[in-house]
Amino acid sequence: MISFALLLFIPLSLALKYLVGAGPIWLFLTGVVAVAILADWVRRATEQLAERAGSAVGGLLNVSFGSIAELVLALFVLAHGEADVVKAQITGSIIGTSLLGLGLAMLVGGLWRERQSFNRANTGLLSTLLILVVVALLLPAMFDIQAHTGMANTDAVDERLSIGASIVLLGLYGANLIFTLVTHRGVFAGDEPSGNSAWSLARSLTVLIVGTIFIAAESELVSDAVEATATLLQVSQAFLGVIVLALVGTSADLFAAVAFARQDRMSIVFSICIGSAIQMALVVAPILVLASWAIGHPMNLVFNPLELFAIAGAAFIVRAISADGETNWFEGMLLIGVYLLFGLAFYFVGA
Amino acid sequence: MISFALLLFIPLSLALKYLVGAGPIWLFLTGVVAVAILADWVRRATEQLAERAGSAVGGLLNVSFGSIAELVLALFVLAHGEADVVKAQITGSIIGTSLLGLGLAMLVGGLWRERQSFNRANTGLLSTLLILVVVALLLPAMFDIQAHTGMANTDAVDERLSIGASIVLLGLYGANLIFTLVTHRGVFAGDEPSGNSAWSLARSLTVLIVGTIFIAAESELVSDAVEATATLLQVSQAFLGVIVLALVGTSADLFAAVAFARQDRMSIVFSICIGSAIQMALVVAPILVLASWAIGHPMNLVFNPLELFAIAGAAFIVRAISADGETNWFEGMLLIGVYLLFGLAFYFVGA
Amino acid sequence: MISFALLLFIPLSLALKYLVGAGPIWLFLTGVVAVAILADWVRRATEQLAERAGSAVGGLLNVSFGSIAELVLALFVLAHGEADVVKAQITGSIIGTSLLGLGLAMLVGGLWRERQSFNRANTGLLSTLLILVVVALLLPAMFDIQAHTGMANTDAVDERLSIGASIVLLGLYGANLIFTLVTHRGVFAGDEPSGNSAWSLARSLTVLIVGTIFIAAESELVSDAVEATATLLQVSQAFLGVIVLALVGTSADLFAAVAFARQDRMSIVFSICIGSAIQMALVVAPILVLASWAIGHPMNLVFNPLELFAIAGAAFIVRAISADGETNWFEGMLLIGVYLLFGLAFYFVGA
Repeated sequence: MISFALLLFIPLSLALKYLVGAGPIWLFLTGVVAVAILADWVRRATEQLAERAGSAVGGLLNVSFGSIAELVLALFVLAHGEADVVKAQITGSIIGTSLLGLGLAMLVGGLWRERQSFNRANTGLLSTLLILVVVALLLPAMFDIQAHTGMANTDAVDERLSIGASIVLLGLYGANLIFTLVTHRGVFAGDEPSGNSAWSLARSLTVLIVGTIFIAAESELVSDAVEATATLLQVSQAFLGVIVLALVGTSADLFAAVAFARQDRMSIVFSICIGSAIQMALVVAPILVLASWAIGHPMNLVFNPLELFAIAGAAFIVRAISADGETNWFEGMLLIGVYLLFGLAFYFVGA
Repeated sequence: MISFALLLFIPLSLALKYLVGAGPIWLFLTGVVAVAILADWVRRATEQLAERAGSAVGGLLNVSFGSIAELVLALFVLAHGEADVVKAQITGSIIGTSLLGLGLAMLVGGLWRERQSFNRANTGLLSTLLILVVVALLLPAMFDIQAHTGMANTDAVDERLSIGASIVLLGLYGANLIFTLVTHRGVFAGDEPSGNSAWSLARSLTVLIVGTIFIAAESELVSDAVEATATLLQVSQAFLGVIVLALVGTSADLFAAVAFARQDRMSIVFSICIGSAIQMALVVAPILVLASWAIGHPMNLVFNPLELFAIAGAAFIVRAISADGETNWFEGMLLIGVYLLFGLAFYFVGA
Repeated sequence: MISFALLLFIPLSLALKYLVGAGPIWLFLTGVVAVAILADWVRRATEQLAERAGSAVGGLLNVSFGSIAELVLALFVLAHGEADVVKAQITGSIIGTSLLGLGLAMLVGGLWRERQSFNRANTGLLSTLLILVVVALLLPAMFDIQAHTGMANTDAVDERLSIGASIVLLGLYGANLIFTLVTHRGVFAGDEPSGNSAWSLARSLTVLIVGTIFIAAESELVSDAVEATATLLQVSQAFLGVIVLALVGTSADLFAAVAFARQDRMSIVFSICIGSAIQMALVVAPILVLASWAIGHPMNLVFNPLELFAIAGAAFIVRAISADGETNWFEGMLLIGVYLLFGLAFYFVGA
């Protein structure tokens, strides 16, 4: 019932925009709430379809539509030429799921339990891919430092390297899908949540398609309002991107993670949170680079030092915490504390 | 007997200062030896009190007085406006315990044994907190780089971020105390050394209070002499801070660690060495930032690249060595070798 | 038979140089192939001698001649004053063995198997030494950054620090040999390949000595042609160093690693690939620094940011993959993908 009622945010935000002509803060706020709600619906439709389709096609569906809200939102922001805000959004999404999401889940799940266990074999792959994410996202920045000292037109080679790196990353992610869904699917099978009540095929497809269309409409509205909202709230656009826009796309994952943690199903929690961070870096970011090049607002993968540090710091602390196969409330608190530290830094950079 | 005889360094150094008017090198040398001896006495008094008090209050006592010598010494140096020397001291204390102290203990303990084992579950938490230390101390420097490219008055925001980060770190350390001393005390109980001969309560308190007062007196003497000593020895003040001042505060820990290693009690060795490094970063450094702000000689947490690299390098190599739950003489040698490498670098920077 | 036929490359390249007077690309290509073939022969001669000599002297032989081709080639390039190309070669050799070599071996070995296991105890030491490599090679660069902000003649202190660090690293490597070959040889004994057909002592020594002499002759030829080849192929000399020169010296290791992986002997694969990378950093690089100082073309250990990032990235991803004691084709693909990313970056830096 609640999730149906929340859908009222969609006409509300559209009405504020086109009928009332409300100020940008109202449009921004109602828009981001609407996107978050739609992302949750699309996530559920994808799950329903995935259960019908079997693990291979289902896995592919999850990959394609699991981050569709982040992708659409980022594309609209990119179309406004705000490549820096998109990079902030990617960063924020990675640390939002792997620090805040995972931390909240561990904290809530650990409050009434001495410890919670998870399957180390399955999280091992995720943990390794996190290191790939760090290497892949640091590379263009290191290249940029190096290139600056030796040549004139850095931007052009930054762009070429980013496109080349994006293709390699998409290839590696493709190989990862073949690995987890085809050649080694037995090892990774038990990972997915088992659905309790199935939707009809028609209903799933309708929610998926209509949801995605409305996400686009709301994303346009949000991306229009970002600049004015940042000015009015006296924060930087990058801060809005890294904290607010990033959490909009991933809030559905956050709620799902906390729910699974309360049921003591920590392997799924890791799958959702770390899987989402990995998909952001290895799928969404490369697609955005290629798309940006196509739509004429080129975005490279040169993240700034603070963003890179946040991503690398998140990866290393998640790896440290997950090494022993157990979690507890303090480890959750620690992840949230690190998220808070990064949040402070992003806030003061813009101040 | 020896430890009583060593107390003669205290009147000696004070006499050199106020009666003889000796040169700064003599004051510096006798002063640092006196602080080291007093730190050992205070450490023993704290242990005696902790054993009376039970694990929760005892743990709190260890936290409060375990690094009191480092803290008092740093406060006096800070009062001279030498924030850079204090940061060097913090760095040196972290690498001094986690590389030199742990390395010496592993080397001595491993000389006549093929391998020594320790409890991986207990060191796992210390190892995770080391990563938090690295993230927490790198953050202000990364912020500083980022802020420099976009704004005018970096110092003011560096200060604000450092204060904010200090509060978060103290909060996380508080949560860690609740975790190890209250909610999960059963897991961490066997960690502490069991005392063999107890002092009376009066004696413990007297040693604690009088020792701390004399530490303050000697620290003033040392901090007065740092600048002149550095000039006379033709080394930088930062080198004195990172190697000499840092080891003064932690030498008590170093001797204790080597003694426990010879008894093949490596879990306690890790507790002492890594615990001391963590306390330096998560308690002493934040308190110094807040105190520096109060006494009008503001110190931020922006460490320099070499210091940060030393701290991060120490953390990663300690984590690598402790991953398998065993130590041997070569791993000890390796830690000492890395300490030597950093020592060389700090020496040549000042040269 | 094939390996005998390949030896024809040696007279071919020499004839092209001294009889035909061929262009630099032909000299470069035939020269590097000849060095690669000779390196394989020297490797086999060393193995034969090592089996005669017992583990301690054999281990020492492997250390001395295992990287002789890399060392001789680098010395000739250094004599041309091309310190940057030598550093590129060192970097390329480290990532070539630990990413490309290990990756190819894992991929080929894993194609028809679900997983391959290796001895975690033995690889644990290699994995720890990889962290030492990262710390040791990052240190001079961090020092350089730090020194630049505070003093005038950075080059002189860079040189002094590099020499000091080289001595410490050689000392640590010596301690490692005592550890693996003397005090703990029981633990590491099963690591080495067992030879199936022994050469005579005379034959082994002849191949070793004559092979090394010809490596020197071909290395001179190659080093003469590097600059002109880079210009003609429109790539940077650094790119030639990091990709081509580096692979020449280590191709023998690469082929051996893939062969052992097909036989499912992954512990030996790790020994070869990671051992070679470690030897490059802890033996060859320090010797080159000391030799460079002696021959009057001083080379320090200040690697550039992209090189350092490649080495650190390789170390962390190898550690992540080897943490679980198992490999599969996807992990191999991942290492190759990361190598490809670095290759792209080195290519575009020179473009």
